[in-house]
Amino acid sequence: MHKTIKIAVDAMGGDGSPKKVIDGIIHHYKNNLDSFYKIFGDKNEINKCLQDFLPTTCYEIIHTEDVVKGTDSPLEGAKRGKKTSMWLAIESVKENESDIVISAGNTGALLVISKLNLKMIENIDKPALSALWPNKTGMSVVLDLGANIECSSKNLIDFSIMGSSLFKSLYPNDNAKVALLNIGTEEIKGNEVIKETYQKISQRKNLDFEFKGYIEGNHLMNGDVNVIVADGFTGNIALKTAEGTANFITSELKKAMTGNFIGKLSSLLNITNLSKFKKRLDPRLYNGAIFIGLNSPVIKSHGGTDYIGFSNSLSVCSKIVKGNLIEKIRNNIK
Amino acid sequence: MHKTIKIAVDAMGGDGSPKKVIDGIIHHYKNNLDSFYKIFGDKNEINKCLQDFLPTTCYEIIHTEDVVKGTDSPLEGAKRGKKTSMWLAIESVKENESDIVISAGNTGALLVISKLNLKMIENIDKPALSALWPNKTGMSVVLDLGANIECSSKNLIDFSIMGSSLFKSLYPNDNAKVALLNIGTEEIKGNEVIKETYQKISQRKNLDFEFKGYIEGNHLMNGDVNVIVADGFTGNIALKTAEGTANFITSELKKAMTGNFIGKLSSLLNITNLSKFKKRLDPRLYNGAIFIGLNSPVIKSHGGTDYIGFSNSLSVCSKIVKGNLIEKIRNNIK
Repeated sequence: MHKTIKIAVDAMGGDGSPKKVIDGIIHHYKNNLDSFYKIFGDKNEINKCLQDFLPTTCYEIIHTEDVVKGTDSPLEGAKRGKKTSMWLAIESVKENESDIVISAGNTGALLVISKLNLKMIENIDKPALSALWPNKTGMSVVLDLGANIECSSKNLIDFSIMGSSLFKSLYPNDNAKVALLNIGTEEIKGNEVIKETYQKISQRKNLDFEFKGYIEGNHLMNGDVNVIVADGFTGNIALKTAEGTANFITSELKKAMTGNFIGKLSSLLNITNLSKFKKRLDPRLYNGAIFIGLNSPVIKSHGGTDYIGFSNSLSVCSKIVKGNLIEKIRNNIK
Repeated sequence: MHKTIKIAVDAMGGDGSPKKVIDGIIHHYKNNLDSFYKIFGDKNEINKCLQDFLPTTCYEIIHTEDVVKGTDSPLEGAKRGKKTSMWLAIESVKENESDIVISAGNTGALLVISKLNLKMIENIDKPALSALWPNKTGMSVVLDLGANIECSSKNLIDFSIMGSSLFKSLYPNDNAKVALLNIGTEEIKGNEVIKETYQKISQRKNLDFEFKGYIEGNHLMNGDVNVIVADGFTGNIALKTAEGTANFITSELKKAMTGNFIGKLSSLLNITNLSKFKKRLDPRLYNGAIFIGLNSPVIKSHGGTDYIGFSNSLSVCSKIVKGNLIEKIRNNIK
């Protein structure tokens, strides 16, 4: 029999909350009947959205009126105190009352409050922000995306271990293939930290992943590797550049496809294929950054996503708990 | 009356040379009758490609059989000596016999041989590799793309000045708007070098460009800025990630558009619009990296491009010479 997965949900973060959060929970529950949601936020507002859509046995509302604002600096967010929906949700995993915590609120505040409340996994020096990227054959885990601007080789090795453990939790049937994001594939390319990391990983034995050396930006989406490791500055630049390029191309395509009658007609004709294409690139599919390295994973859903995106982030939560992510990292970091 | 623009052409570099180089010259000459080409390479092979397509007054062949190979390391390329087509072409600008030099050959060797032969522009510490990127309203200059992995704030300021001078040479009617590639737009974001650069540029007077602060990867193609500055590691990651993302999306699109009969039919119907779209993103349009900071600009055409791409790189050469790039940099760097 499956164990119940207890998810602590900050209901008040992100645009259109709590409605999109509650709608996301309702949508997620349909395919995840083993879930229990501890929902933190304004009881009246939450109940208005919940109506009778969920069995009362699968959730609990912990009322609070304090919230971290999207415009708060990380420190301002933390200083709003221990009664905000975000703080209480994080505290719930600290007290072992929940297995994992999720918020669509202020990213910086989420990281700071998590670090204040949760301990690091033993032997990990810095936590990292990771996310999922599409590639030609499936999905990749990419980290760090901005939590650590300067990284040592020890940090990058930790990220490799955490990233491959995350990949294995999400895709238990696949092997993790790790590469370091670099500006060339020859051993001598790159800065000192990255070269040192390459050497140290190559010498390491009993790795739980296949080490594929360096990967360049233009091969990130080929699918030859599925865990991509970088310092937070580089990872953030790569992630956002990919996002900007995707937006640019799809907007140019839209212009071309709807510019005249023929364009409109043929787009109409081709609507199934085009919507398949859009679905493949739908950012809601990849929604949810995962903050790993603390003794509980913390999931960040995008502030601007809708209930489908939030529901997908909840699915990531379910998979991570079922995949025993933290235990995997502990076993591999030794 | 226009002055003749003398272009030193390494005819032997890149895939399919010298044919694609010579075809590129023939194509370029049609719209650039003020050009004179000094062509370096194997006379027999070059003459076979030239036939009678060009007036004999607009070119000169300087025969040599030595070539730098695509597989040479930068040093191996340089050690092939002073009789390679690449070395002789570069020497031609050193001796003021040509205004600018272009090669589709080995990038690393081109940079090393250029640095060995050409002096730095006074007050510039490091040369940079720059390129053109499309954006929603036109084109941007991006630099450095990998010539300098570690950069000081002085280097990044030099890059801003060189990049804006290059932009003004290529687009004399537009204003240069410079931004530093970073992981956030607030003043406090980023590493120490980038923050110092921000401060120093903000305090500087008599700038020839508008300083727009930081730009994030997802806004690179919005067109709000047209000169994007980064250290060589970051710039290379961004450029290649954009390239990889573009390839990934267009291949997914192709799959969607040709997956079944309806897809094929509507693509056929929409062929004009789709080819407009393809044209807008055609990498041959942006072909040609520009190595700046030496007292002559050195143009690198992509090794894998065809004659159209090479011809576009020759057009960049023409514009740079007409725009007095080196003089512009000298005036602005003071």
